[in-house]
Amino acid sequence: MLSVRQALETALRQTTRLPVESIPLLESAGRVLAEDVITDVDMPPFPRSTMDGYAVRSEDVRHAPARLQVAGMIPAGSYPNFSLQTLQAAKIMTGAPLPLGADAVQMVEKTRVLDDGSAVAILESVPAGHNVSPFGSEAHQGEVVLPMGTFIAPGVIGLLAAVGKSQVAVYRAPAVGILATGDELVDLTAKPALGQIRNSNSFTLYAQARQAGGKPQLLGVAKDTKADLRQRLTTGLQFDLLLATGGVSMGDLDLVEEVFAEFGLEVFFDKIAMKPGKPVVMARSPRGGLVFGLPGNPISATTVFEVLVRPVMRKMMGFPVYQNQMVLATLTEPFVNRSGRENYAPSVTWYEERRFMVRPLKSKGSGDVVTYAKSNSYLICPIERTELSPEENVVVMLRPDFFYG
Amino acid sequence: MLSVRQALETALRQTTRLPVESIPLLESAGRVLAEDVITDVDMPPFPRSTMDGYAVRSEDVRHAPARLQVAGMIPAGSYPNFSLQTLQAAKIMTGAPLPLGADAVQMVEKTRVLDDGSAVAILESVPAGHNVSPFGSEAHQGEVVLPMGTFIAPGVIGLLAAVGKSQVAVYRAPAVGILATGDELVDLTAKPALGQIRNSNSFTLYAQARQAGGKPQLLGVAKDTKADLRQRLTTGLQFDLLLATGGVSMGDLDLVEEVFAEFGLEVFFDKIAMKPGKPVVMARSPRGGLVFGLPGNPISATTVFEVLVRPVMRKMMGFPVYQNQMVLATLTEPFVNRSGRENYAPSVTWYEERRFMVRPLKSKGSGDVVTYAKSNSYLICPIERTELSPEENVVVMLRPDFFYG
Repeated sequence: MLSVRQALETALRQTTRLPVESIPLLESAGRVLAEDVITDVDMPPFPRSTMDGYAVRSEDVRHAPARLQVAGMIPAGSYPNFSLQTLQAAKIMTGAPLPLGADAVQMVEKTRVLDDGSAVAILESVPAGHNVSPFGSEAHQGEVVLPMGTFIAPGVIGLLAAVGKSQVAVYRAPAVGILATGDELVDLTAKPALGQIRNSNSFTLYAQARQAGGKPQLLGVAKDTKADLRQRLTTGLQFDLLLATGGVSMGDLDLVEEVFAEFGLEVFFDKIAMKPGKPVVMARSPRGGLVFGLPGNPISATTVFEVLVRPVMRKMMGFPVYQNQMVLATLTEPFVNRSGRENYAPSVTWYEERRFMVRPLKSKGSGDVVTYAKSNSYLICPIERTELSPEENVVVMLRPDFFYG
Repeated sequence: MLSVRQALETALRQTTRLPVESIPLLESAGRVLAEDVITDVDMPPFPRSTMDGYAVRSEDVRHAPARLQVAGMIPAGSYPNFSLQTLQAAKIMTGAPLPLGADAVQMVEKTRVLDDGSAVAILESVPAGHNVSPFGSEAHQGEVVLPMGTFIAPGVIGLLAAVGKSQVAVYRAPAVGILATGDELVDLTAKPALGQIRNSNSFTLYAQARQAGGKPQLLGVAKDTKADLRQRLTTGLQFDLLLATGGVSMGDLDLVEEVFAEFGLEVFFDKIAMKPGKPVVMARSPRGGLVFGLPGNPISATTVFEVLVRPVMRKMMGFPVYQNQMVLATLTEPFVNRSGRENYAPSVTWYEERRFMVRPLKSKGSGDVVTYAKSNSYLICPIERTELSPEENVVVMLRPDFFYG
């Protein structure tokens, strides 16, 4: 049986980046650049003050203190409509363009206002170029300012706007089909009868797939018959990624795997040494779409998504890092692992006094979605450890809700 | 001049949660619950096995080893269509319902298959209730399973689905108007002439507001004239939150503040002891919308968003925590703070061997958006510190891109 690490390596090896598409700048946040972006302008487009102070001609202040006439004032975001003549200065703000004639800025702390502001004393001399970002010093026209593979955070959006990219080449976001299977499943709006439960997996996975940047679509609930599964798989295999839940346990009801075979799917693994989530199928259809057969147990399905599916989606989208953030945390209470598998235990992690603390939740069993909903992370207990002790440093996988909750 | 902390306290004090709205479950991820959610079903809806093994009648195995006939097999996600008679067992998977008649589960490791699986030897006795989550043990019908104020992560979506919430009451997401001001600004698609720059602030803030869960809308670029500003503010003040950039520096061009006064805006502060971002106006219009006047400098505007605006938006949406995650990190190189203000320096932070490391980026000035785009965090240097040394532990504010990049 594959270890979690082996399963992740296999899954990533079978995953390729999706093709490139061009999308409007405002839609590109959260995606990954699929092109080197060059600037069509020099940045800054003018010599720019790095300080609040006075723009001067450095030769005028070679002998300080020097008295200069104040020719004007230049706030950031304005452009001076005057130039500096001999023995003139201009009051200037950080980020503002120097007027023509000026070649240096003296910081306001080394000046003194004279004559109600119509003149200024420059108390120390400044060399040419002092406190000035020269024209083009951040980037010259034609230079690459953002390499292919950059994650498009808001600050990157700003730079893309500054260089005039109204359309941006990014890796396509995967279309994710989400299919539940099981005769016992009823719709959200139905009241379950004896032996029935509501289909909750599809909704959880939809939220996870969207959070990961994908474009999920619900494909309903398949009955445990080959005919129904076949029909729904025909639709599902047209997606970049199909997530099917249920039907992958032991025994006679492993219809999903049987029907996978009929469709010619190449299966890479069908179980992993992970708790929760042992029965997990990963496969690829002849037309190229990837397929995960996830356990029907809600906590298993959502956990396998975080451990295997999210990294696959991130690789499809061109992300440089695939896995959720792992940290070391101090365990607050004992933890027992009787599974003989790598155990991903729903936990609450928080940061306190220079370190992460983690408290595994007291679950009432692997189906306890009430307790799971309180978690923001997984305590990861290695296969070979049957017990972890309080104060131990343990590995924790943070979910995105750790940051956003 | 207010400290950053005072400004944040003031901003949050002036912010109230937005009204409640009811939205479809699938749209509710990332929002905050505005109602206590009760379950309309018992969870689990049946006695559920917490182990892979055999469901038994505990009285049959009081004397172990005991030989039992295997009456059937129950995968997770199925419901048994048989009940256990005396001296019968059922193979059962974790999460599966016990058949009628069974009252305990023996784990598979303490059993032995007999007669090709038609019988099983139970090697140790089990008391009634062993390895079983009783009916209703996670939550009883009518119980609150999710309190008001819960952040709606994917695991919460799953629980909402399980209890049949197809519509969810959440706090409304703020409508955010984004207005740039400045004669020097040209559109994304234009090539800037001398003294012009492209409007990039609006795009950065749009991405930030959307990332924070808001509903942003671009309101264009206002010219530096009272008439144009008045007209655009009339539109902008209809939003829950208006972000205006530019026009808040010193001197004659402080049109934004002048026009704010005309509209009867109550101003709470107009500068803060923060670098970058000293000139920052926060105000409220008579009809209740909040307004931030942010600096025109792109790095100032985006940084003030993270420090003040994102917390305000999170409070509007009912989040329990307002600020971005702060951590202590080991500084990798010296940092100098000559500003006399609390300095938020764009930085790269990473987690390595049990600790965060932070490297402040070598910016070529406060307008260096090329360097800023590489950052994922801010090193925060206190007002009173003029120098920080390598190996010091320093406070860092992580941006969401730290987690998602």
